[in-house]
Amino acid sequence: MEAAQFVLTLSCADRPGIVGAVSSHLAAQGSNILEAQQFGDAQTGQFFMRLVFHPCTADVAADDLRAGFKVVAQRFDMQWTLRLRDQRRRVLLMVSKFDHCLADLLYRWRIGELPMDIVGIIANHPRETYRHLDFDAIPFHYLPVDRADKATQEAQVWAVIEQSGAELVVLARYMQVLSDELAGKLAGRCINIHHSFLPGFKGARPYHQAHRRGVKLIGATAHFVTADLDEGPIIEQDIERVSHSNTPEDMIRIGRDIERRVLARTLRLVLDDRVLVDGHKTVVFAP
Amino acid sequence: MEAAQFVLTLSCADRPGIVGAVSSHLAAQGSNILEAQQFGDAQTGQFFMRLVFHPCTADVAADDLRAGFKVVAQRFDMQWTLRLRDQRRRVLLMVSKFDHCLADLLYRWRIGELPMDIVGIIANHPRETYRHLDFDAIPFHYLPVDRADKATQEAQVWAVIEQSGAELVVLARYMQVLSDELAGKLAGRCINIHHSFLPGFKGARPYHQAHRRGVKLIGATAHFVTADLDEGPIIEQDIERVSHSNTPEDMIRIGRDIERRVLARTLRLVLDDRVLVDGHKTVVFAP
Amino acid sequence: MEAAQFVLTLSCADRPGIVGAVSSHLAAQGSNILEAQQFGDAQTGQFFMRLVFHPCTADVAADDLRAGFKVVAQRFDMQWTLRLRDQRRRVLLMVSKFDHCLADLLYRWRIGELPMDIVGIIANHPRETYRHLDFDAIPFHYLPVDRADKATQEAQVWAVIEQSGAELVVLARYMQVLSDELAGKLAGRCINIHHSFLPGFKGARPYHQAHRRGVKLIGATAHFVTADLDEGPIIEQDIERVSHSNTPEDMIRIGRDIERRVLARTLRLVLDDRVLVDGHKTVVFAP
Amino acid sequence: MEAAQFVLTLSCADRPGIVGAVSSHLAAQGSNILEAQQFGDAQTGQFFMRLVFHPCTADVAADDLRAGFKVVAQRFDMQWTLRLRDQRRRVLLMVSKFDHCLADLLYRWRIGELPMDIVGIIANHPRETYRHLDFDAIPFHYLPVDRADKATQEAQVWAVIEQSGAELVVLARYMQVLSDELAGKLAGRCINIHHSFLPGFKGARPYHQAHRRGVKLIGATAHFVTADLDEGPIIEQDIERVSHSNTPEDMIRIGRDIERRVLARTLRLVLDDRVLVDGHKTVVFAP
Repeated sequence: MEAAQFVLTLSCADRPGIVGAVSSHLAAQGSNILEAQQFGDAQTGQFFMRLVFHPCTADVAADDLRAGFKVVAQRFDMQWTLRLRDQRRRVLLMVSKFDHCLADLLYRWRIGELPMDIVGIIANHPRETYRHLDFDAIPFHYLPVDRADKATQEAQVWAVIEQSGAELVVLARYMQVLSDELAGKLAGRCINIHHSFLPGFKGARPYHQAHRRGVKLIGATAHFVTADLDEGPIIEQDIERVSHSNTPEDMIRIGRDIERRVLARTLRLVLDDRVLVDGHKTVVFAP
Repeated sequence: MEAAQFVLTLSCADRPGIVGAVSSHLAAQGSNILEAQQFGDAQTGQFFMRLVFHPCTADVAADDLRAGFKVVAQRFDMQWTLRLRDQRRRVLLMVSKFDHCLADLLYRWRIGELPMDIVGIIANHPRETYRHLDFDAIPFHYLPVDRADKATQEAQVWAVIEQSGAELVVLARYMQVLSDELAGKLAGRCINIHHSFLPGFKGARPYHQAHRRGVKLIGATAHFVTADLDEGPIIEQDIERVSHSNTPEDMIRIGRDIERRVLARTLRLVLDDRVLVDGHKTVVFAP
Repeated sequence: MEAAQFVLTLSCADRPGIVGAVSSHLAAQGSNILEAQQFGDAQTGQFFMRLVFHPCTADVAADDLRAGFKVVAQRFDMQWTLRLRDQRRRVLLMVSKFDHCLADLLYRWRIGELPMDIVGIIANHPRETYRHLDFDAIPFHYLPVDRADKATQEAQVWAVIEQSGAELVVLARYMQVLSDELAGKLAGRCINIHHSFLPGFKGARPYHQAHRRGVKLIGATAHFVTADLDEGPIIEQDIERVSHSNTPEDMIRIGRDIERRVLARTLRLVLDDRVLVDGHKTVVFAP
Repeated sequence: MEAAQFVLTLSCADRPGIVGAVSSHLAAQGSNILEAQQFGDAQTGQFFMRLVFHPCTADVAADDLRAGFKVVAQRFDMQWTLRLRDQRRRVLLMVSKFDHCLADLLYRWRIGELPMDIVGIIANHPRETYRHLDFDAIPFHYLPVDRADKATQEAQVWAVIEQSGAELVVLARYMQVLSDELAGKLAGRCINIHHSFLPGFKGARPYHQAHRRGVKLIGATAHFVTADLDEGPIIEQDIERVSHSNTPEDMIRIGRDIERRVLARTLRLVLDDRVLVDGHKTVVFAP
């Protein structure tokens, strides 16, 4: 039987000896390092690392590995995670009327491109809106927004997150602004796809803004959600070329392709523990 | 002897019959249309067209063709130009300390990629700064800027433009802001390369801004110069991928490549009469 | 009521006067030209044109317009088509086991990105293979291939094409080689997506070939099907970056994204009469 | 004084304990690891690693570090290099008539983008061909090729390589095929830029081949030179979009831009010890 793979991510104040201490610890317990990436941020003095390793024996438990690593982590005052690589993350998807990202994520999940368990879909539109999409056994929650009382809906959203045990929330073109409170509670585990090449064209109707400005490239941006709208740490971006002859509607169409591939790429990176938050930026350990 | 090619560009309020009238006029005089591109801007109601044609005989003069076209132009109240395609435009280059765009344009000009006559180079740094560049017989003008009296230098710049007969001015990383007056006098015939993906990161030190924001793509933008800084009509843009590990200095290096190719592409388009101004946007009839 | 738009495409031996004759004809009958693109192939001496126009009156029939244009067409011995732009083409999709292109085309069709009527889906795998896809009322034909007798299945395929009135056949990762006879009958109206950057890696398992060769970019190619396998006129291509760390399976995954966007773009171009065959190449009048 | 950086690269048969042994060795001597990248090739069973580290003290010599590492290297039967990162490599450039890559490399070298010492330029065209390029104090060798006796010229080339102490040879559009013998002597330290997207369009006049085939993207490929022409390990590739309207001459022009950026990127990677040969492929530890 092949030994399972574990992923260790860590960040701490940079100082000599971190890599050596981590490697020695893993070597001492007989682990074999399969992948290792690191980054020292010269501006913040913070150090980041991601390792994939096989433990010595096939049947070692993540809890035991964690208990063992705690000593190293404490020595350097690390933020860290250690996970069985194959253990699927519990993910909740949120969507509004436009379902191109949702349809895309569902397809990729189904064929095995996105190793995750989808524990629920929340929409502020009824099931009928997505009637052509097969949700399988995924629980669907229709939580419409009452403009006069957004708090009630957000409480329902939070209840679904809690009850489903969601570790990650993906705003797959969910066109409602989260309250500071909810954004705060989801810090570091809520991803949004913004339909512009941030920081250009923040706010509403970015493709119309782009058309008015006459840009020759349009883009999309995936970022962690923070209370500060459209200012969260950027994870991934991409663009397509447009021309004077493209209408705002053309840009919306072209943009759908950018949005869905940027969001899918981002989710794949996050699910494989490749994205670490570095203040209001991200460290992305690409494969 | 092969007949010369002429380029006709025009814009006017859109209404039925423009293409027919232009084609009929050219057909009536025996011209053969080699290329034709058109665009009707649904938002502004403006129509744009670019045609390349062989006249009936090899020795017809541009002036005669212009005289003939005047009737059609007046009927539709057109803005228009009609030029012998092979007639090289007179171009003035302006540069500050960083000469990567200048070096690149000179190289392309030398091997025939940019069909133009360079009638002068203006720099606010002395000839010594560019000592490794061969300027051939191109007049070099060292016009340093006195911060307390920018007007004097701009008067000198204007004098060079006038005396050299420059039809086009290219700010090839010229890091001085033109006064509203000079920008106004150069409206529609002055191109700038901005080292950011506009409208993101306007103003100073855009790569440092990009680094601070943690974007995953950086870009450059070529645009017509207007009094409103960094707001001129965009002609061309391009980007490169960056990562968390790139320092601002890396971005400056990567950006040099983007800047020089965006500016060179733009200049090629402009020299072949492919760029028309449409309010604060551009129509680019790409090949 | 807004007048309908018509699309005229034509090709013929290049000689002076074609554009003038076409424009004059349209002008004479009161049509207004909205888009016009042309190309003279200097190597083959062939001329190509695509025009979009509003006829003089809202209720003119395509047949009448065709009857009128016949005179011009005969004068220049043109190959030509004239169609009502909004009239949806009848399209048949063919697929094997991998359904990423099929799923993608269905989604785009459903939201209106691909203006066509899907008149049938032919698969050499049973309906169950695509159980998560909603085929709506589209007829599904399970036509498995008997390796010892491919002719029988092809006869069935041809019967479906005939009976459905399909104008266009799209091989959306249909992994069977068409016989020369069927390829011949579908000349100019059958599109295939090949999962390599042609002409590199023709034949079977191109991603494995690419991996073995150690290329740094992989691609996909959409082309018209001809009897000569993987040699048909190329319509569109695109690529993605890969690295030494990508396995053949990674490349297959990355390739799915390239394949589906290349095929979708191609189909959009073909449906809008933007692709003309020029010998063993294509002229693509991009928007 | 800041401690110098050293770069260690290694490859060996993959087995547990390599990373641990290397890290422990560096930790034991007080070094701090700044960058670390690794790759295990599952198909060949070969392991590759690149590390950047600060040694404990500022004045340690590379020779001492090498002597210390020898024990680890022998234990795993490694191929390895250990270099002072700032020590400039000695590079020889070879060129034929087209000098766009040469001009580009010289510019980048001059402004500090390419940290290397250019120890010579070999051309089979006279100095006059490059009269607009400032070679500074770089020795220039005009070594024309006599088709009847290529061996004599190659002997001269080899003499220049030997006498200049060149560690790396860059064929910057040097349009002569090296003999198997010379290619063999330069194995692993000679880079070529091929003006096609390999493996497509091997051999002569690739842009003309691309034009004939009607591809929609053209490319360039940098690779290590081997006796097997156009089959050496690929280091880097890039592409640009072309259309039916591009002539072979257009492709040559567009290709120049691809060639020079691919070659410059490749050289930067090689100079920073980021490229390791893995059979007939490469491992590229990108920044």
